[in-house]
Amino acid sequence: MGLAELRIVLVEPAGPINLGSIARVMKNFGLHNLVLVNPRCSPQAEEALKMAVHAKEILESAVLVTTLPQALQGCIRAIATTARVRDGETPLEHPRTALPWLLESPDEPGALIFGREDRGLSNEELNYAQRFVRIPTSDNYPSLNLASAVGICCYELAQQTTPPTTPPPSRTELASLDIVETYYQQLESLLLDIGYLYPQTAFSRMAKFRQLYNRAHLQTQEVAMLRGILRQIQWALKSQGNHDNL
Amino acid sequence: MGLAELRIVLVEPAGPINLGSIARVMKNFGLHNLVLVNPRCSPQAEEALKMAVHAKEILESAVLVTTLPQALQGCIRAIATTARVRDGETPLEHPRTALPWLLESPDEPGALIFGREDRGLSNEELNYAQRFVRIPTSDNYPSLNLASAVGICCYELAQQTTPPTTPPPSRTELASLDIVETYYQQLESLLLDIGYLYPQTAFSRMAKFRQLYNRAHLQTQEVAMLRGILRQIQWALKSQGNHDNL
Repeated sequence: MGLAELRIVLVEPAGPINLGSIARVMKNFGLHNLVLVNPRCSPQAEEALKMAVHAKEILESAVLVTTLPQALQGCIRAIATTARVRDGETPLEHPRTALPWLLESPDEPGALIFGREDRGLSNEELNYAQRFVRIPTSDNYPSLNLASAVGICCYELAQQTTPPTTPPPSRTELASLDIVETYYQQLESLLLDIGYLYPQTAFSRMAKFRQLYNRAHLQTQEVAMLRGILRQIQWALKSQGNHDNL
Repeated sequence: MGLAELRIVLVEPAGPINLGSIARVMKNFGLHNLVLVNPRCSPQAEEALKMAVHAKEILESAVLVTTLPQALQGCIRAIATTARVRDGETPLEHPRTALPWLLESPDEPGALIFGREDRGLSNEELNYAQRFVRIPTSDNYPSLNLASAVGICCYELAQQTTPPTTPPPSRTELASLDIVETYYQQLESLLLDIGYLYPQTAFSRMAKFRQLYNRAHLQTQEVAMLRGILRQIQWALKSQGNHDNL
């Protein structure tokens, strides 16, 4: 079962702003099923609907139940998020390590459980989950806002299905080396003319410019612009002369 | 420089709830420096302070500036978050791929730039960054809440698990963004003087040069050389005039 079937289970959420933010970020990452256990506020409170923006339907279709087992009905895999270790034995895992497991269940949806804004999940509630996730945070302020925690987990879940890829740089328009070489020659010639380069140091100084421009992977259009500047400078130098000759 | 020095730069944020959530999640992940460019609400509005909970000091110490270059002063590396491709050429990278690069600068802080809640960053603003990050989202609702986006990026920064795939340029000598900006200004001024640029098209044409040079990750010494060329051209233009006057 994939992301679209996964349940986000919130136990006794109290903040409508959080509910709205959670609905929005769920939809942002392709999740739809929100289950609320004894919510302390309405998922259709004005502030919730406002924060959800274009994800109001997730609030409207949220399932309200009174116990955590009801929320997990039909699920085979459940992970609970928690900031503290329940006992000395159960490991708290990194979201990146544990969350993909929720998506591996072939026939039944997974559930990801979040506790109350102020005090998380009780030990009893933790017992309903098979694995436990803790988002690593700073010791100076470890307690994440509920919506932030849900957002980060939804993001991590979505990355499992779309691994990061770096789009390759567009190749079609890269300038051919001979065109770039012509530019370097023209640049060197101009820089010698205006006295920026001296013949004996031109080679090493030009090497630095070559390195700079090579690093940028110049495109054909860009070389044309750079050559346009050189032509215009040469024109301006001549024109300045002619003008002053008048 | 590490996480603690990294700047979160928000351009014209309008929602106090977002500001408070952002302050909290920054502190959760060990970040402290919040810079606001022309904020449309007070970072110390009641709702902001309420959402920040134990991170009010980040709102209180937030730096308010009027332009994006001011926000980036002293930074060498800047990444902009954006949902759309500016042109067909600049790759949008995954946060996991690109963000660690911000933390590799040894002496100068990095900056991570976020745009307005409703319309992100302008093309001009994007020009101030060297790399561009897009958090992959569902096509059904791609637009993340600002605080969610900042939270996910802060989380990714704190994980620092994945090394960047693009080999980082030599680190010690990267030019600070304000020095590079000075070069752009001088270049534009000269190109207007010599008639290469026209006032009405200068902006779009200069954007192409900015993209080219930003891609090259200019070093301090290289900016000095480029500025040396401009000075020499200006000198040659004057000198040509004087010479012909003799």
